[in-house]
Amino acid sequence: MTVKAYGAYAGDKPLESMDITRRAPGAHDVQIDIAYCGVCHSDIHQVRAEWAGTSYPCVPGHEIVGRVSAVGVHVLGFMPGDLVGIGCIVDSCKHCAECDEGLENYCDGMVGTYNGPTSDAPGHTLGGYSQQIVVHERYVLRIRHPEEQLAAVAPLLCAGITTWSPLRLWKIGPGRKVGVVGIGGLGHMGIKLARALGAHVVAFTTSESKRAAALALGAHEVAVSRHVEEMSLHANSLDLILNTVAAPHDLDAFLALLKRDGTMTLVGAPASPHPSPQVFNLIMKRRSLAGSMIGGMPETQEMLDFCAEHGIVADIELIRADEINKAYERMLKGEVKYRFVIDNATLAA
Amino acid sequence: MTVKAYGAYAGDKPLESMDITRRAPGAHDVQIDIAYCGVCHSDIHQVRAEWAGTSYPCVPGHEIVGRVSAVGVHVLGFMPGDLVGIGCIVDSCKHCAECDEGLENYCDGMVGTYNGPTSDAPGHTLGGYSQQIVVHERYVLRIRHPEEQLAAVAPLLCAGITTWSPLRLWKIGPGRKVGVVGIGGLGHMGIKLARALGAHVVAFTTSESKRAAALALGAHEVAVSRHVEEMSLHANSLDLILNTVAAPHDLDAFLALLKRDGTMTLVGAPASPHPSPQVFNLIMKRRSLAGSMIGGMPETQEMLDFCAEHGIVADIELIRADEINKAYERMLKGEVKYRFVIDNATLAA
Repeated sequence: MTVKAYGAYAGDKPLESMDITRRAPGAHDVQIDIAYCGVCHSDIHQVRAEWAGTSYPCVPGHEIVGRVSAVGVHVLGFMPGDLVGIGCIVDSCKHCAECDEGLENYCDGMVGTYNGPTSDAPGHTLGGYSQQIVVHERYVLRIRHPEEQLAAVAPLLCAGITTWSPLRLWKIGPGRKVGVVGIGGLGHMGIKLARALGAHVVAFTTSESKRAAALALGAHEVAVSRHVEEMSLHANSLDLILNTVAAPHDLDAFLALLKRDGTMTLVGAPASPHPSPQVFNLIMKRRSLAGSMIGGMPETQEMLDFCAEHGIVADIELIRADEINKAYERMLKGEVKYRFVIDNATLAA
Repeated sequence: MTVKAYGAYAGDKPLESMDITRRAPGAHDVQIDIAYCGVCHSDIHQVRAEWAGTSYPCVPGHEIVGRVSAVGVHVLGFMPGDLVGIGCIVDSCKHCAECDEGLENYCDGMVGTYNGPTSDAPGHTLGGYSQQIVVHERYVLRIRHPEEQLAAVAPLLCAGITTWSPLRLWKIGPGRKVGVVGIGGLGHMGIKLARALGAHVVAFTTSESKRAAALALGAHEVAVSRHVEEMSLHANSLDLILNTVAAPHDLDAFLALLKRDGTMTLVGAPASPHPSPQVFNLIMKRRSLAGSMIGGMPETQEMLDFCAEHGIVADIELIRADEINKAYERMLKGEVKYRFVIDNATLAA
């Protein structure tokens, strides 16, 4: 089946309208008419070949929400008309320890929603900047939010789960103090989720101008990271720091805020390494510097259900598909609060 | 009381014989006639003022074993004649969360066995290169090894507990695979302890010549870290890496050997930072880079008891006190297998 999409034919070309094909649903497949697709920073990196290994044409998009339009004969969990989501994963090996534990995100055979290996044409997966997608039922999430929130649910599929997974792994809840570094697409979700989980939340930003916004998102406190005195108020006090900043920066200033046995987890990947952290900063309080990458299918469903129950969605700006190149430029300048979402109905235009 | 000691009057002076005073035992104090004292790399760093803040005269030594010669009136747990040990800690605040949990090593008021603040003359603590020491009973460990092993027990008080504490924290036992990087004072204890705990142990060394020695210490496998193929045999397979190397080195080569959720803990502190680790190496498998510093009193006693039960001691070379300056030179060249221990009886000479 041929559908409309928005993508790029090369790393140095802008995105443009194109036709792509989707496979007919197999026995375990779910076919989804995409309503909205969030715009993630990874989309820019990959479509512009800033990370290694982009195949073209490249159709980005892994924050997908829509309605089921057809299901394969063995699909029991979904039926046409259901509100569903697709995140960063559309396939995995299904039999390794990671898949068995529901951590498909760490499966060596994990297939990304775009630019991943597939036997479908053109040989690599094509993402959510398109009218339709066909995905094995294992990687389809149920959405229980009211339909009018659907566009703002889309970013939960990547920004939401990427922050949710470490918050859960490191047992964040009442009585725990969490720092969130960077108030962007990931960070704004981290603040909302940590707050809803019952933690005391401190937002860290380089920008004085984001102070009020961070409080509005749910942070109990805000520290501007260039203000040494504000930072020192939180020394040795945080259980977890969710560091969402992908640009290289001084990690020691944040590691020093962790209490004994605290962890700073990096969820952004800079193109060049951060300045090397001081070993004493880790040893003296038995602190950890960790990483975390999106999340598995069961925990993504858990996050979506939690958000539906607590009325949590992303703060978004809805755009037309033909505004995507302009949106990328604004994202690179930090001019979005906090996530662009494409109205996929505009792909037909 | 005046006793003989070996120490330095300045960072650029060799160690020499000197007289020091010890306080009379207070109500909770234990007075110990020191039989042996291990020689730790930290001793060199501190006595030579390579770390900040060394006070002189400096008498190093925090791997102390001996016999109780007197106890204060409120001391119930020890009596004259008991075989005991003193490690890196001789005091702490005794009322913080860390002290309450038996993690006195992370107490902000922790007082090191030498070069720590004290009201005793000369205003800083003096360590185990001396005939006698007086310590609050809380920081005195019971030694259950046979007396003929006493000299080789001394290094357990620092090298032993520094490797034991992370092995226990990260739940090392049967079915777990542990890497030990660096086969020196710390590393050789790490191999012995991890093996005795039931783990599968892989030793990593830069030196082809240490291969047989590492196997003799109890490693199941040895990898020479310059051999890329040998290293790659262990990719994504280790639950924990105990990295004992204090010289700056490439951490990524080892991080890549951790399985998902694995941790590399640093127990050596280089004077300058390691090259910065790749963020992707942490994110892709949710790995952690952590630190750990010696251990608390209860876990030190647990380690000593475990070692007594399993017949574990350090591999040592016994020296006279007046050989200490020569021993330092040999340590800096890596010419010791694996720990020098001073026979404190030679201080009287």
